[in-house]
Amino acid sequence: MVESHTDARPDHLVHEEAGMTDEPPIMTDGTVTTPKGFVAGSAYAGIKTYAKDKWDLGILVSERACVTVGVYTQNKFVSPSVTLTRQNVDAGRVRGLVVSSGIANTGVGAQGMVDAKETVALAAAQAGLEPGEMIIGTTGVIGVELPMALIRSGIPSIETGRDGGEQFARAILTTDRVPKSAAVQLELGGKKVTIGGCAKGSGMIHPNMATMLAYLTTDANVEKELLAAALTEVVADTFNMVDIDGDVSTNDMVVLFANGAAGNKPVAAGSAEAQAFVEALAVLSRYLSAELVRDAEGSSKIFTVHVEGARSREDARLAARAVASSTLVKAAIHGSDPNWGRAIAAVGYSGADVDVDKVSFFINDVAIMEAGTPISFHREAVIAIMSNPEVSLTVKLGIGDGSATAWGCELTEGYVQFNSAYTT
Amino acid sequence: MVESHTDARPDHLVHEEAGMTDEPPIMTDGTVTTPKGFVAGSAYAGIKTYAKDKWDLGILVSERACVTVGVYTQNKFVSPSVTLTRQNVDAGRVRGLVVSSGIANTGVGAQGMVDAKETVALAAAQAGLEPGEMIIGTTGVIGVELPMALIRSGIPSIETGRDGGEQFARAILTTDRVPKSAAVQLELGGKKVTIGGCAKGSGMIHPNMATMLAYLTTDANVEKELLAAALTEVVADTFNMVDIDGDVSTNDMVVLFANGAAGNKPVAAGSAEAQAFVEALAVLSRYLSAELVRDAEGSSKIFTVHVEGARSREDARLAARAVASSTLVKAAIHGSDPNWGRAIAAVGYSGADVDVDKVSFFINDVAIMEAGTPISFHREAVIAIMSNPEVSLTVKLGIGDGSATAWGCELTEGYVQFNSAYTT
Repeated sequence: MVESHTDARPDHLVHEEAGMTDEPPIMTDGTVTTPKGFVAGSAYAGIKTYAKDKWDLGILVSERACVTVGVYTQNKFVSPSVTLTRQNVDAGRVRGLVVSSGIANTGVGAQGMVDAKETVALAAAQAGLEPGEMIIGTTGVIGVELPMALIRSGIPSIETGRDGGEQFARAILTTDRVPKSAAVQLELGGKKVTIGGCAKGSGMIHPNMATMLAYLTTDANVEKELLAAALTEVVADTFNMVDIDGDVSTNDMVVLFANGAAGNKPVAAGSAEAQAFVEALAVLSRYLSAELVRDAEGSSKIFTVHVEGARSREDARLAARAVASSTLVKAAIHGSDPNWGRAIAAVGYSGADVDVDKVSFFINDVAIMEAGTPISFHREAVIAIMSNPEVSLTVKLGIGDGSATAWGCELTEGYVQFNSAYTT
Repeated sequence: MVESHTDARPDHLVHEEAGMTDEPPIMTDGTVTTPKGFVAGSAYAGIKTYAKDKWDLGILVSERACVTVGVYTQNKFVSPSVTLTRQNVDAGRVRGLVVSSGIANTGVGAQGMVDAKETVALAAAQAGLEPGEMIIGTTGVIGVELPMALIRSGIPSIETGRDGGEQFARAILTTDRVPKSAAVQLELGGKKVTIGGCAKGSGMIHPNMATMLAYLTTDANVEKELLAAALTEVVADTFNMVDIDGDVSTNDMVVLFANGAAGNKPVAAGSAEAQAFVEALAVLSRYLSAELVRDAEGSSKIFTVHVEGARSREDARLAARAVASSTLVKAAIHGSDPNWGRAIAAVGYSGADVDVDKVSFFINDVAIMEAGTPISFHREAVIAIMSNPEVSLTVKLGIGDGSATAWGCELTEGYVQFNSAYTT
């Protein structure tokens, strides 16, 4: 049941030659253990019986003290796993994480917190930490208790190592098709620092498993207040702008660990280094967000929605999300149908401020509407554009400078088939 | 092109024998011209080339002065037809309505208001009214101008009569499968009064035609303030609780005309008669709302979501709507999958107050969760229940006395096919 750790790790720096652009390049072979001082490991405990990649239990640990911040689901049916994680993160000593996939640990009454605490205690003991230094992420079927017998026998078999990041990324998957990991690097105060991360999909997946989990690690030394603000800001623009089916999970969380192993001086809010760090975190999170959408079950086509010229950034986010989550827009994307009225209508009900006479709309680079009036466009050319696996919709509201991007995926017959199948 | 008016009208009172229950019985053969003093007529102008029932232009008129109130879409890309209607209703003289189906008159720049005004003026002239006494409802494709040549030649051919209600109900349809009309009757101050109405579907229909229109007429004499409050309250509990695909149209409106032809004394707010009137209006609106969902294209299965014990009525509405509009719940209904975690999760993200330990959940009468803890249920029995064409989900929140009902329909492969087809 123990992860084999036999794969040689590829060189994480092979992409660095591309670093001439403004943004740090994505290291597609990076993981949560690419940053210094993080180890991880996984096991198959037998919880997740249906998946190809059967790792279903994992531990991630910083070898040194850590600053840890998180953002969590707003769903009021929150999993006790999320509640316990939030409590421990708030207490300020967290440097380890245990994850399990297959069972959500949600909707099971008081037993949920009991099981979350026991799992955290077992994982902390295995990692040589105290329970208060450990958090827990669970994903899977709602309404079934965690199989503690399997977890009790599985955790002691987990061996963590510097090469454990890739298998850890598999341990959080449910019916995702591929693991989603990456890293970015940048210089802070003359030191090379790395940010790594992994994520699992938010929807269009197995019944009851529409959970988004993302775990980010960095060896940068960053002040806690800045770290928390950076995560909140970046998540609002990336993971929270992913819409696959509009449902919000009971178990969603994004957690960022910063252990300072790179040896840079602490990055403080307001500095140029802070800005560089936030941008790099955004690059990584944007990449993982797009990968989440690309991996949605039943979908082979994604679309981005760019909103510009909104009254505020929050308005831009509202409008972009509304378009990305409209089932009518998703169906139009599936059919390569330049049915722009649906996108415009979604902007209209998003809650964002709109001056109808100032709105312009583009499919890729083709202007469809300008200043509130439709433009004659070459229909077959737009259908051809929309037949590509990635389509871009741009809405220019013309009343401010707020902008945002959201990602959506097509709505397919396969989605319906997949999600109408019995739970078991 | 003129409606033939040859059908003999069935007796509208045949259902009255069922009136022993608390609620007035639905007269399924009732229409907007069942109440005294209303006439209607329709024509085929050639706007709607794809539908089976080709009536695409209609006029409804009260033969006497009228109190008219409306509620309208919140979409900021509002159709000029809605804007003009609201202006005229607010001015207080409206007693006529012109409708056309096939083109939304939305997203066409300044021409939209020009065309709405011309259509209203033409219809007013045909009905012997002034333009300020007439309103307009349009539904159909966004971004295409109203074909005014067809409307100019069509309107003069409309002949209104007391038997025009059924054809009027057809003139507002786009790809709805059947017209949706009904009436109810009650006694107010010793006089028999009638409320009639017709509606068209809100989604899962032809691309860009996801509009909900409902027109209600009554010969009751009701004070305007009470009439407006009654409509707002009833719409919030009925038409606004219908969710077919979650998208909110640019053209939605519900308008209620009350002409007092029944001869009852004015019904004032706070009276027992006011309560009876509101209840009868609710019965009719509830019936039409359920019919809207039943007629959704691509769907043969509807479900109701009852929420009880919410902190407030508004909370109950939020929770019921969230469950009814969850694509994951809709897919589970399609597959007769007792996947209750999806419904619970939707309640959790609805915004309604939730105490997780007090929530109970039922599929039809089968308890699935009680006080936050799942109950063992006979899985095959619940699947059998869910295989019926109508399924009932009940959520008891246990923290107050707010209640609400929403209606949703299954998400099918047919919906995706239908809505991914090209606009043209």
